[in-house]
Amino acid sequence: MNAQIIFQFKKMLQNLDGCMSKATAYSDGKKFDVNVLASYRLAPDMFPFNKQIQAACDSAKFCAAYLSGQTPPKHDDTEVTWGELRVRIGKVVTYLDTFKESDFANIESVQVKPGWAHGKWLKGEEYLQELAVPNFYFHLMAAYAILRHAGVDIGKQDYIGHLDLKS
Amino acid sequence: MNAQIIFQFKKMLQNLDGCMSKATAYSDGKKFDVNVLASYRLAPDMFPFNKQIQAACDSAKFCAAYLSGQTPPKHDDTEVTWGELRVRIGKVVTYLDTFKESDFANIESVQVKPGWAHGKWLKGEEYLQELAVPNFYFHLMAAYAILRHAGVDIGKQDYIGHLDLKS
Repeated sequence: MNAQIIFQFKKMLQNLDGCMSKATAYSDGKKFDVNVLASYRLAPDMFPFNKQIQAACDSAKFCAAYLSGQTPPKHDDTEVTWGELRVRIGKVVTYLDTFKESDFANIESVQVKPGWAHGKWLKGEEYLQELAVPNFYFHLMAAYAILRHAGVDIGKQDYIGHLDLKS
Repeated sequence: MNAQIIFQFKKMLQNLDGCMSKATAYSDGKKFDVNVLASYRLAPDMFPFNKQIQAACDSAKFCAAYLSGQTPPKHDDTEVTWGELRVRIGKVVTYLDTFKESDFANIESVQVKPGWAHGKWLKGEEYLQELAVPNFYFHLMAAYAILRHAGVDIGKQDYIGHLDLKS
C-alpha cells in the first residue's frame, strides 16, 4: 500500500483553494458578493458548494484517520462564507500534514466502519479504493464544476496543479 | 504500489455505464431522444458529455498502458450516440481486464511521457497519483454531473456502486 493516494488529497484541496481564490477575483471584477456562490448547486438534489467542500474535507479527514487508527478531529459544518470555507480546507490540510507514510502501515488488517453503515465494515483496502477515493473526488470535482458552471475563469490546470515534469 | 487504484477505474466506468442506462430510462419516460444528452455541457468551455466519456476512458487506458510498458489500443473519439459511448466504455473495461497486478511491478522505475508534455516526463508514481487518478475522476465525475444537471434520477450510490459490507 502506498500512502501517496491519501497525501494527494492535500494537494487537490490546495488546488481547489486556489480555484476559490480565482472565484474571489472573478466576483470582484463582476461586482457581486462571492459568498453567493457558496449556495450554488448543479442540481436541486445535489449539495450546494459549501456542503461539497465540507464533504470533500471530511472524506479526506476520515480516510486518513480511519486507515491510521486515529480519532479524527471534529468539524461542525457551519461554514457559509468563502472565508470560512477556506479556513475549513486549511484545517484539513494541516491535519493531513501530521501523517507520515508509516502511519498507514496496517491498512491490510484495519476494519473500517463508515458512519452510515450501521456497524458493518469494509477491509481497509476496499474502503480506500472503492469508497474514500471515489467519494473524495466526487465532492472535490462537484465543487470545481459549480465554479465552472458559474463562469469562474479556471481550467484543468488549476484542478491538477503543478507537475514536476523533467527534461 | 498497489494496482488496485487502476483496477478501480473499471468499476467506476461500469458504474457510469449504469448511470447511462438510467438516463435512457429517463429519456423514455420523458419521451426525448437520449442522444441529445451526448452534447450537453456544464459550461460552454467544458467538454460535452461524449468527450467527457472519451477522456475518462482514455485516462484509464493510458494509465494502465503507460505504467505497464504496453502500447495502448487506439480509439478514434468518433462516438456521438449513447450506444456508441457505451461500446467505448465496454472496450476500455475489456482492456483493463487484460491486466494483472504483476503488470504494474515496475512503476517505481517507469518514466511516463504524457502526449501533451513535449517529451518531458514524470516518474510513474507521480504520473499515477498527481495526474492519472485526478484526471480520470475529473472526467468521470463531469459526465456524472452532466446527467444530474439534466435531471436524470441517479445518486451517489449509482456512482459508488456495490460495496462488500461485512457484518
